[in-house]
Amino acid sequence: MSKRRSTIEIPSLNAIDRTAHVGRQLAQALRSAIAGGELRPGERLPSTRSLAASLKIARGTVVEVFDQLTAEGYLEARVGAGTRVAAALLDTTPAPAPAAPPTADTIDLPAPAARLMAIARALAPHPPVPFAIAVPASGIAPDDNWRRLGNRVRASRQAAPSGYHDPMGVLELRIAIADHVRRARAVRCEPEQVIVTSGTQQGLYMAGRVLLSRDDQVWAEDPAYSGLTAVLDDLGVKTHRLPVDAQGMNVEHGLELYPQARAAFVTPSHQYPIGMPLSMARRNALIAWADQNRAWIVEDDYDSELRYAGHPFPSMQGLRPSRVIYLGTFSKVLFPALRLGYVIAPSPLAEAFAGARAILDRHSPTSEQHVLAAYMREGYFEAHIRRIRGLYAERRAVLLAALEQALPEGCRVQPSDQGMHILLWLPEGADDVKIAASALSAGLAVRAISRMYAAQPARPGLMLGFGGFPPEQLQAAVGELVKLLI
Amino acid sequence: MSKRRSTIEIPSLNAIDRTAHVGRQLAQALRSAIAGGELRPGERLPSTRSLAASLKIARGTVVEVFDQLTAEGYLEARVGAGTRVAAALLDTTPAPAPAAPPTADTIDLPAPAARLMAIARALAPHPPVPFAIAVPASGIAPDDNWRRLGNRVRASRQAAPSGYHDPMGVLELRIAIADHVRRARAVRCEPEQVIVTSGTQQGLYMAGRVLLSRDDQVWAEDPAYSGLTAVLDDLGVKTHRLPVDAQGMNVEHGLELYPQARAAFVTPSHQYPIGMPLSMARRNALIAWADQNRAWIVEDDYDSELRYAGHPFPSMQGLRPSRVIYLGTFSKVLFPALRLGYVIAPSPLAEAFAGARAILDRHSPTSEQHVLAAYMREGYFEAHIRRIRGLYAERRAVLLAALEQALPEGCRVQPSDQGMHILLWLPEGADDVKIAASALSAGLAVRAISRMYAAQPARPGLMLGFGGFPPEQLQAAVGELVKLLI
Repeated sequence: MSKRRSTIEIPSLNAIDRTAHVGRQLAQALRSAIAGGELRPGERLPSTRSLAASLKIARGTVVEVFDQLTAEGYLEARVGAGTRVAAALLDTTPAPAPAAPPTADTIDLPAPAARLMAIARALAPHPPVPFAIAVPASGIAPDDNWRRLGNRVRASRQAAPSGYHDPMGVLELRIAIADHVRRARAVRCEPEQVIVTSGTQQGLYMAGRVLLSRDDQVWAEDPAYSGLTAVLDDLGVKTHRLPVDAQGMNVEHGLELYPQARAAFVTPSHQYPIGMPLSMARRNALIAWADQNRAWIVEDDYDSELRYAGHPFPSMQGLRPSRVIYLGTFSKVLFPALRLGYVIAPSPLAEAFAGARAILDRHSPTSEQHVLAAYMREGYFEAHIRRIRGLYAERRAVLLAALEQALPEGCRVQPSDQGMHILLWLPEGADDVKIAASALSAGLAVRAISRMYAAQPARPGLMLGFGGFPPEQLQAAVGELVKLLI
Repeated sequence: MSKRRSTIEIPSLNAIDRTAHVGRQLAQALRSAIAGGELRPGERLPSTRSLAASLKIARGTVVEVFDQLTAEGYLEARVGAGTRVAAALLDTTPAPAPAAPPTADTIDLPAPAARLMAIARALAPHPPVPFAIAVPASGIAPDDNWRRLGNRVRASRQAAPSGYHDPMGVLELRIAIADHVRRARAVRCEPEQVIVTSGTQQGLYMAGRVLLSRDDQVWAEDPAYSGLTAVLDDLGVKTHRLPVDAQGMNVEHGLELYPQARAAFVTPSHQYPIGMPLSMARRNALIAWADQNRAWIVEDDYDSELRYAGHPFPSMQGLRPSRVIYLGTFSKVLFPALRLGYVIAPSPLAEAFAGARAILDRHSPTSEQHVLAAYMREGYFEAHIRRIRGLYAERRAVLLAALEQALPEGCRVQPSDQGMHILLWLPEGADDVKIAASALSAGLAVRAISRMYAAQPARPGLMLGFGGFPPEQLQAAVGELVKLLI
């Protein structure tokens, strides 16, 4: 092997175009010659002088390339022994990449992949057609104030491009959030307890990371938000689904069978997806259980700002700030693509939430946090809520009236005073999943709730969002929907 | 208990101010009277007529309040039997909230909390003083082009406030990213393989969720990025730390002792924190291992755009696209507060990454994704990289020169051709953690690398970022730093 190669024996090198980036070309040509086996490990290369001469390029370039490839481990230079292809490459040069690109069949997927692929499909967002939920359309989405204020704020030094920030979020925003939830939701908190999130989904995941260890037991509602049940599965905890009745989650059921649970995930002001509030008796029972068992209540208050009748319930956090983790979001009252929400945590847990956020993705982008803080501070936010509440109430009334007129036998609307969707119960035995599928091909987006139940057979029903669509569009859509129900 | 109360016996009700929100006041007064025990479960209330008369308010208001509290579960109405305080409240009314706010001592923290609190401290960002890393200052941060383009793009329909989007990210941005990594890093990918992340931290977490199950074994470098080791601990996997030498991570060590590992987390182009590249021989050995064991390579290519000499290494993804998950970030070349990065995954895994993202926080905010896509499409991004590369090279040279002049005996700069920081080795036995602490109180931000080693005693050294600071500031800071080293 010690015979020194002459250049002619490395034909690929002659492909070099001497007009540009000669060094880079030579380096790449040598790498491929080695990777391709044209040059074999241990084999000796021409001297830099002879190679430069034969390629008609500057010797300095060749020296530089040899140094580079030596640094990369392709070549070895031994004083007196010239330069060789590194012997270390001997047994380790991998087989050439497979010709055909790999498919799910040709590579074995890691264990979690199949579950996560199913989740990607289950949580896929709907197109912005009736009756998709949380579609901010004209009149609903924040208007030019939002954009103009944003341009102004982003021009300020504080919102300009900058480095890493506090995982808890921008202080001005946390102050504005604390003010808002104190006034609007009777939440008892200080800005130090507020952790800005990228929405309720992240709030749920963080709460799970902070509160729960693998194999812990938790309570969740049945039916429940599929984004929550996906998180609980992902965390590897044991979830006990508690049936929902007219008073909300059946807390007594949990107290009887699973008192040892570490946390309860609930939507007290507006059960997701059905819509009734959790009764005061059960709120008290839940808090008494948390007190006695040192357990935690995760209160998802996802659309409490949108109430159309009656007095809103006070938040559970306000009843027992020390055992409740309160989750709020701006996705519903502003718009989902903003990806901002918040957690209100008991003070002793706040830093743990910051740690969870640091591991997950460090923090939310800062400039939009500054924009939102200004939007709230300057009163635009409350004005916006007042405006959309009126608009939603009107559209909701239109939808309910249209349904009342057109609903076939056995369909029934679930009474509810709050939120961005109404629940339409279908006759026992109806296949809501199939109906939702055909609805989608008919240009309608409805969610089948049977998928959100653990208990089977699940009661069939459809979630109908109304916020993003003007009256006449809603009325026409009801006509289309009814055709699928008969 | 069946005697009907007369109003006079519910004194708190008389506190009602009849000039405003009478109904809300009455409801709240009754709630507190019940919660406080002034009214006991099962007890009968005055008739709506007599209560209205005695309080001198409209009877309709009282009826509405009774209905509301009945709905809330405070009251029960039985036909003929009048209205009573709900018996269900009997055993469940919780003890009044503790007077003093709870502290870490008074509530027992959940098991994960302590670990997460420590992480919050370990990952706390540095103030923007020398030698903090990734501090975008004037000349480094994207300039007015970024803001003006942003204002223009946000005014367009596509970037306006909207609903939930594809967890994989905005397609225009994924196309721009695929183009960039193909050209700049010899990454072989299609836009379908690109998942937009909120930065490398999230990319690492997602890769862990998709590739690994609890108790799987993985390889990581020693020393390594503490944000990575925190993720691996959080995932409950068994991490084997492989020592780093002049050729980067000692792959042979892993092959010998832990060939059964499922994945290897590496920083091949610029070892974090030390800075040498992974040699070609070891890249090949790593790929051969991944091929043979169906294992995965997670390539963190965090600051590969910032190379100052020699040819950059081709990415490992380019060598074996089917076994490498490639992570890139805009935090280094644009700015961290933007919170945008990307994963390039083998096609069969892409949807699983989308599922992981959907569980964690659904997706990144969309308007900034549109802004960045335009910034890249219109050529601003490449021009920006060229500009900062020159600026960083200059500042780096200044820092190295200043250190060379001033360094005390036993300190040594680690050679490296890339990145936003240089590594300063301290004499054996020096306490880099203590020095970093006193540096911070002297207005200098340096990272102690002994904290990043698993093997003990760890070699002491300091990471010095230079990008965000003009020459004279760097020179002065070196003077200050040296005082702490003597």
